[in-house]
Amino acid sequence: MKALVLNCTLKPSPNESNTEALARVVMTALESHGVETELLRVVDYNVKPGVSSDEGDNDEWPMIRSKLLASDILLMASPTWLGQMSSVAKRVLERMDALLSETDDQNRPIAYNRVAGFVVTGNEDGAHHVINEMAGALIDIGFTVPGQAWTYWNKGPGPGESYLQTDYKHDWSKKTGEAAAANLVAVATALRDRPIPAPK
Amino acid sequence: MKALVLNCTLKPSPNESNTEALARVVMTALESHGVETELLRVVDYNVKPGVSSDEGDNDEWPMIRSKLLASDILLMASPTWLGQMSSVAKRVLERMDALLSETDDQNRPIAYNRVAGFVVTGNEDGAHHVINEMAGALIDIGFTVPGQAWTYWNKGPGPGESYLQTDYKHDWSKKTGEAAAANLVAVATALRDRPIPAPK
Amino acid sequence: MKALVLNCTLKPSPNESNTEALARVVMTALESHGVETELLRVVDYNVKPGVSSDEGDNDEWPMIRSKLLASDILLMASPTWLGQMSSVAKRVLERMDALLSETDDQNRPIAYNRVAGFVVTGNEDGAHHVINEMAGALIDIGFTVPGQAWTYWNKGPGPGESYLQTDYKHDWSKKTGEAAAANLVAVATALRDRPIPAPK
Amino acid sequence: MKALVLNCTLKPSPNESNTEALARVVMTALESHGVETELLRVVDYNVKPGVSSDEGDNDEWPMIRSKLLASDILLMASPTWLGQMSSVAKRVLERMDALLSETDDQNRPIAYNRVAGFVVTGNEDGAHHVINEMAGALIDIGFTVPGQAWTYWNKGPGPGESYLQTDYKHDWSKKTGEAAAANLVAVATALRDRPIPAPK
Repeated sequence: MKALVLNCTLKPSPNESNTEALARVVMTALESHGVETELLRVVDYNVKPGVSSDEGDNDEWPMIRSKLLASDILLMASPTWLGQMSSVAKRVLERMDALLSETDDQNRPIAYNRVAGFVVTGNEDGAHHVINEMAGALIDIGFTVPGQAWTYWNKGPGPGESYLQTDYKHDWSKKTGEAAAANLVAVATALRDRPIPAPK
Repeated sequence: MKALVLNCTLKPSPNESNTEALARVVMTALESHGVETELLRVVDYNVKPGVSSDEGDNDEWPMIRSKLLASDILLMASPTWLGQMSSVAKRVLERMDALLSETDDQNRPIAYNRVAGFVVTGNEDGAHHVINEMAGALIDIGFTVPGQAWTYWNKGPGPGESYLQTDYKHDWSKKTGEAAAANLVAVATALRDRPIPAPK
Repeated sequence: MKALVLNCTLKPSPNESNTEALARVVMTALESHGVETELLRVVDYNVKPGVSSDEGDNDEWPMIRSKLLASDILLMASPTWLGQMSSVAKRVLERMDALLSETDDQNRPIAYNRVAGFVVTGNEDGAHHVINEMAGALIDIGFTVPGQAWTYWNKGPGPGESYLQTDYKHDWSKKTGEAAAANLVAVATALRDRPIPAPK
Repeated sequence: MKALVLNCTLKPSPNESNTEALARVVMTALESHGVETELLRVVDYNVKPGVSSDEGDNDEWPMIRSKLLASDILLMASPTWLGQMSSVAKRVLERMDALLSETDDQNRPIAYNRVAGFVVTGNEDGAHHVINEMAGALIDIGFTVPGQAWTYWNKGPGPGESYLQTDYKHDWSKKTGEAAAANLVAVATALRDRPIPAPK
């Protein structure tokens, strides 16, 4: 079983990413279940605006898309800005819009029988909403979202420390992320064994 | 397999409910898969404000809650007001907050291995957002949301006709609702056969 | 100048309300600007479901509505449940839907030249989203929302203490609430002196 | 009085933009009130990811930012993808995050006394939510959002025609956009004459 982790931080490598730090906690948990994981920092790639699978002109979305389609689990990881997901996360969702009209060899929408989970960090309030926006878009595309398939970290009220600047309640985010990993693996396994069939 | 449909219209029976009319399209599809369905119009019951499982004083949530826990599939159906879900739908979500701290006989959060789908109608824009808000809350509680497990009907821009006042694009809402029903049954079946285990 | 504060807690009086405690901080700030304030705990009243100005059958919304229309400033105060506003806040917005079709003696939508601000508390993440949902609905109805016309308190990640259980960062919520009060008064004053005219 | 219109379509010039077509309806209305307008298609510029005012390396946000600060009115125009705003609109909001820590010569947050309005188009449902997300972020930054300061166009249910492919209900979107323009001008004028003072 494979998981692709898309870190949607605004900071290009090699800058430190709080979102990546928490995503790696969930990746470790996924690996403990035997899942092969790979993390891409999306902002390092030239993902062009648009809603087709290849926008041409050195668009690097096709590379990310192929890794996505080779995975059973998608983990979207986003920072929080103004209480909302990053523009990089939004770009990723937009590019996945094209999946809506693609089907697999059994005529199933191509996102069917894949599961999605979420990691959100912030120096302020907003995580639930960021999760809901990402989940809603992916469900629309055809991903299944298992119960409690997410974790987050922030600390309110008002702007404050980032995840890597403190140890405050990392334990909660870790425990919640481990449950998320277990649920993602369980539902991905269930759908591998008992897949959603093609629509009639 | 059982499905409980919660119609969260603001209109008490026997008033005509657009939301119920579209919900019944999905119910018929669920029944064609052998699912036993029951619809409750929540506003007909005394569902008290609060976040416990029984707020006392003739609270009728416990009755709804017991039907919910006897079901494999929850179908939330809401009208759209000001682009948002109804207060009745919000009340239902609030009352389900208590499920967060309940576990089954295998120590699993009680909403695990249940699936949720959505029906939204409106005389104006807002359905995607209403779906995402309901889905986000139920995922938080532990429900799994299958890909494309919803349908909706509205017709923009600006306020206009309601679902039952026209035949416009009922076919799209029906076809989408039938796919939702199939996906709900498929994922509920997968989770019955390969359930999410208790968190460690 | 008058301000009506609608406390949308789920807890009837005389239960302690965290939301009311923070709302009173903003009320004190409003009073320091010479504004007359009144707080209603909406759950204490029989506010019936519906989208008309009077749903009959002992509906107490008409009383709240008349106080609302006698005020220049509306302060909506809501707790956070599952990252979303309370069902009581949603009910209030729904009942205000009827204002969309009412005009004043100069043929202006009746909510024009009124301003709205927000107070949100929670034992977990969600405040920005609750504010945005309330603001969006009120802007739709015709209220003007001044910049930075809100304050909130919560403390993540995960569920934890409520506002009244700790002094943690009350200072931030107070300072932010005082700025909100000043901005509400400033924009209400500007609109009293230079009102938005009736649409052509 | 000046208005800057940021068209957040995903399509670079000279591609036809539905969002621009509706934005120009509102621009014409603004001009009828004597407002000088300028439209930028943001995707034509190199707006780098980040949350500072200048991310260097040929970042073109500083040019947009200077036009923004020279304007009294900001009109954000976004298409709808998966029920949400475009990644370009999200990028613009992120870059405005830096305004939170900037003040003018009277020590006022730099966005104070500016007003914001919204134009949304889509080939499917989602406009109210896109408006609320943009409005919420701009209110956080300090912009004032007048009542009914937006218009939109879409036509549900399900995906369908785009704005320029039909004349269906263009009249509603135009009338609503003209009211939005009038309200933006009225509140911008009120705040020019009776500005929000610096926080104490």
